[in-house]
Amino acid sequence: MKKNLGAIPAVYPMPVLMVAAYGENDKVNVMNAAWGMICAMDKIALFIDEDHKTTQNLLKRKAFTVSLADKEHIKPADFFGIASGNTMPDKFEKSGCKAVKSGFVDAPVIEEFPVVMECELAEVVKTESMYCIVGKIVNTAAEETVLSENGKIDAGKLNALIFDQFQNGYYISGEQVGKAWNAGKELMAKN
Amino acid sequence: MKKNLGAIPAVYPMPVLMVAAYGENDKVNVMNAAWGMICAMDKIALFIDEDHKTTQNLLKRKAFTVSLADKEHIKPADFFGIASGNTMPDKFEKSGCKAVKSGFVDAPVIEEFPVVMECELAEVVKTESMYCIVGKIVNTAAEETVLSENGKIDAGKLNALIFDQFQNGYYISGEQVGKAWNAGKELMAKN
Repeated sequence: MKKNLGAIPAVYPMPVLMVAAYGENDKVNVMNAAWGMICAMDKIALFIDEDHKTTQNLLKRKAFTVSLADKEHIKPADFFGIASGNTMPDKFEKSGCKAVKSGFVDAPVIEEFPVVMECELAEVVKTESMYCIVGKIVNTAAEETVLSENGKIDAGKLNALIFDQFQNGYYISGEQVGKAWNAGKELMAKN
Repeated sequence: MKKNLGAIPAVYPMPVLMVAAYGENDKVNVMNAAWGMICAMDKIALFIDEDHKTTQNLLKRKAFTVSLADKEHIKPADFFGIASGNTMPDKFEKSGCKAVKSGFVDAPVIEEFPVVMECELAEVVKTESMYCIVGKIVNTAAEETVLSENGKIDAGKLNALIFDQFQNGYYISGEQVGKAWNAGKELMAKN
């Protein structure tokens, strides 16, 4: 039996995305965002508020990066979600993280996180339902330690954080339980 | 050192969403979608193609449900991503799943999946970057077996599938490694 819980947001899993952009004087700022998803093979949509320092920065520089936070860096990742660049000018320095300029876009790459998408600002979509920043992914880079032998990113090696909005938990992935376009194929043949 | 991989979609984790709607003669159809995310506290955005049978159905009925697939039902969940309602009219029947009509919206609730968001069609957003179906979440319901004692959904009990777009794997959550707005709070006090 299902129990009614009211109108609550119930997508699980959610990612823990680190959105980074340059501000005035090339000052690095980073924010933590869970409400983001791929919206085309080379595009990412971020549902973030317009008043964040990082949003204002990326609108001016027309570029940003999105990294995946991992278990090893849970402290700075969560801190990027607690502290505000609007009220704490030295937010990034306090995190202990380091950044280098992307070789592809006018935005910082945070060295600590294992995977980064380097994005140009593609579009800002404002409707009655959403305020959405869309990035065109120009390049994706990953630490060699999280790659499989086939050269692709290995989700089992990432230790990427998973956000649980039901109870504000951070999880990591457990076991692989199947393959897509495979686990259900026996039903294709049924009858 | 980070290795450049080209412009690939690199959000991880992704959810495994079961989008369901009624077609002609109240025929149930369900599709598997990974590119969806909460876009406001009571709204969900789905980046799905316009030509899917389920998309056409939900546009006509102006309602749909979104369930979270779990490990126990990986076979039908994956099958809903392999088979097309456009070419296999009895897709839902072949899955072995059962559906009941939502008490909140004009759409089917799949009984097997542990969490469901019952949605009215709120908006269709077409831009140069995206084709996006937005649902207003009218109610969320969950099996009592996946609730914590506090009445909230327990991510640790869900066994929700996680989609790995890098290598087409399905994972489930492992251990909880921290709490949001908590894991990084010691950095707030630094200096």
